[in-house]
Amino acid sequence: MPIRTLEWKPDNPPDPLPGHLVFIDQTRLPAHLEQIRTTDIAATWKAIRTLQIRGAPAIGIAAAYGVVCAVQATAGSQTAAMLAAVEAAADYLATSRPTAVNLFWALGRMRRTAHAAAALNPAEFAARMLREAELIRDEDDAMCRAIGRHGATLLRDGQTVLTHCNAGGLATSSYGTALAPIYVALEQGKRVKVYADETRPLFQGARLTAWELQQAGIEVTVICDNTAAWVMQQGRVDLVMVGADRIAANGDTANKIGTYGVACLAKAHGIPFYVLAPSSTFDLSLASGKEIPIEERAAEEVSRPAGGGPVVPDGVAVYAPAFDVTPAEAITAIVSERGILHPPYTSSLRA
Amino acid sequence: MPIRTLEWKPDNPPDPLPGHLVFIDQTRLPAHLEQIRTTDIAATWKAIRTLQIRGAPAIGIAAAYGVVCAVQATAGSQTAAMLAAVEAAADYLATSRPTAVNLFWALGRMRRTAHAAAALNPAEFAARMLREAELIRDEDDAMCRAIGRHGATLLRDGQTVLTHCNAGGLATSSYGTALAPIYVALEQGKRVKVYADETRPLFQGARLTAWELQQAGIEVTVICDNTAAWVMQQGRVDLVMVGADRIAANGDTANKIGTYGVACLAKAHGIPFYVLAPSSTFDLSLASGKEIPIEERAAEEVSRPAGGGPVVPDGVAVYAPAFDVTPAEAITAIVSERGILHPPYTSSLRA
Repeated sequence: MPIRTLEWKPDNPPDPLPGHLVFIDQTRLPAHLEQIRTTDIAATWKAIRTLQIRGAPAIGIAAAYGVVCAVQATAGSQTAAMLAAVEAAADYLATSRPTAVNLFWALGRMRRTAHAAAALNPAEFAARMLREAELIRDEDDAMCRAIGRHGATLLRDGQTVLTHCNAGGLATSSYGTALAPIYVALEQGKRVKVYADETRPLFQGARLTAWELQQAGIEVTVICDNTAAWVMQQGRVDLVMVGADRIAANGDTANKIGTYGVACLAKAHGIPFYVLAPSSTFDLSLASGKEIPIEERAAEEVSRPAGGGPVVPDGVAVYAPAFDVTPAEAITAIVSERGILHPPYTSSLRA
Repeated sequence: MPIRTLEWKPDNPPDPLPGHLVFIDQTRLPAHLEQIRTTDIAATWKAIRTLQIRGAPAIGIAAAYGVVCAVQATAGSQTAAMLAAVEAAADYLATSRPTAVNLFWALGRMRRTAHAAAALNPAEFAARMLREAELIRDEDDAMCRAIGRHGATLLRDGQTVLTHCNAGGLATSSYGTALAPIYVALEQGKRVKVYADETRPLFQGARLTAWELQQAGIEVTVICDNTAAWVMQQGRVDLVMVGADRIAANGDTANKIGTYGVACLAKAHGIPFYVLAPSSTFDLSLASGKEIPIEERAAEEVSRPAGGGPVVPDGVAVYAPAFDVTPAEAITAIVSERGILHPPYTSSLRA
């Protein structure tokens, strides 16, 4: 069982309210495991803004709990005042990371729940809002476990998985997506080992994937991204499992920069390459990966690795795309909470 | 014309002696261009030990000049005392980097020169020793230029080269090996652009290759190693040029970790992949790359990137090979000072 990324802790259990949000500050990992406890909506906003909480599902859950904090702060008021607090909190939290789709989705759901609950008394209203936040978390949890169950059928005892970036529990409520099959396999008594690409420029593989696998007691070895080919050549990798940010209708998959290279190398070495992602990642409005916009990141993320450096001379250009696109033909299968999709994805995704 | 990595500067030109060694402290690049002037053999030892001077050819040249410093320090003595100083200096400098083949080769050559010159008077002896050091440098220079001339025939105006690590002027006396064709192409009026892989864990591509190309006025863009596949996929790379640490009789080539992955990616994208190295790199005693031992580096080089981090949790394993082996079939051609070798290398290398 992986560690909880974030959760609601009641002050006087079993009463669910009042309570507080507890989350791991991911910017401090791996050097420090620091859990932040807060009932402050501004602290929640800052946590999302500064990547203390990251990963689309985890951001959505954090925002929902942030709204609960705002409701709790109006305890003693009428329901109308609580409803106004929900609207204000949702407006405010929406400014924390303007491009995070899950953030807006979760905040919209909390708003709709609040309006539907406007006739309840204040205590019932607050309880309803907390229940909705817990539902968002539980649904994410169930979705990750389902991905894990499907994905675990691809994993045999004694195998070694290579993964890139962090599509693990830290990006969701607990099991993650790409790492979920590994956690489920562990529960099934399979011994699985992992190579974690460090994932330049921000080292999410070394910092986060290695940390959460270590916490779960799974044997993990960190390699520089440029070492993936060599471990494959030596026969040390049985399969690759990665997450996805967006999947086009033909199966082309956008994910963290470097994923495409790993897919090419897996193909060259005859190693299966699996993408694991919730069905909410499928964007059937895009015919192919060519239509997926690729964000470019600041040169400083490359030139100042983890606070060190500078490693790039002043005035030299840096090309730092945040994502790349892996073409469908390099993907052995796509695993979602609904099952395992095989090529051709144009038909299997639609079905 | 690339910048001089290291050279001998006479105190009173045109008299060659006395003088001093001037070299770039490569550990300070790219943040600081610091040239160190010394007549101190201990400072030369330290420069090699601490990678202020790195790259096999540059290390050999530095050691030869270190011996000259030792001779110069005995000015006023008899030739016999100078000869003893050569022996002591060579013994001492040989301890600076125990695995550097060029170091022993250069020191052996200086010893043999000293013994052959034992009948000269002290001033003639000192001049002879300096001349031998200058010869070692000039031969390296000529070899790099020859590699550059052959390699430049593979480069057309307007093309873009991707390179990995630093097999440039900073590793030799001036032109380098993998970068030599780029400098020669520039002299021939060709406009050539370069993508430099940053080259984890020690960032030689970002720190050194980008720096020396920038100094020479060549357009260079630094990418994380994991971005090489994506720039190839986008059609931004016309050819790959890399150096070599050791080439087996069948053409299998050991070079900095990550080279093998770049070769796989070049093959997958139909991009020519060239190895450029002096013929002293050929080790025909090895039938194939399987016989090349692969050094493993300390985990700290990965976990503490350029002084930043830590990016790897305590207790998590790190696999950090210093080199990998690119199989001959992934190499389009091998360029040495003697010309361009094509497959099958088993016959072309022997010839």
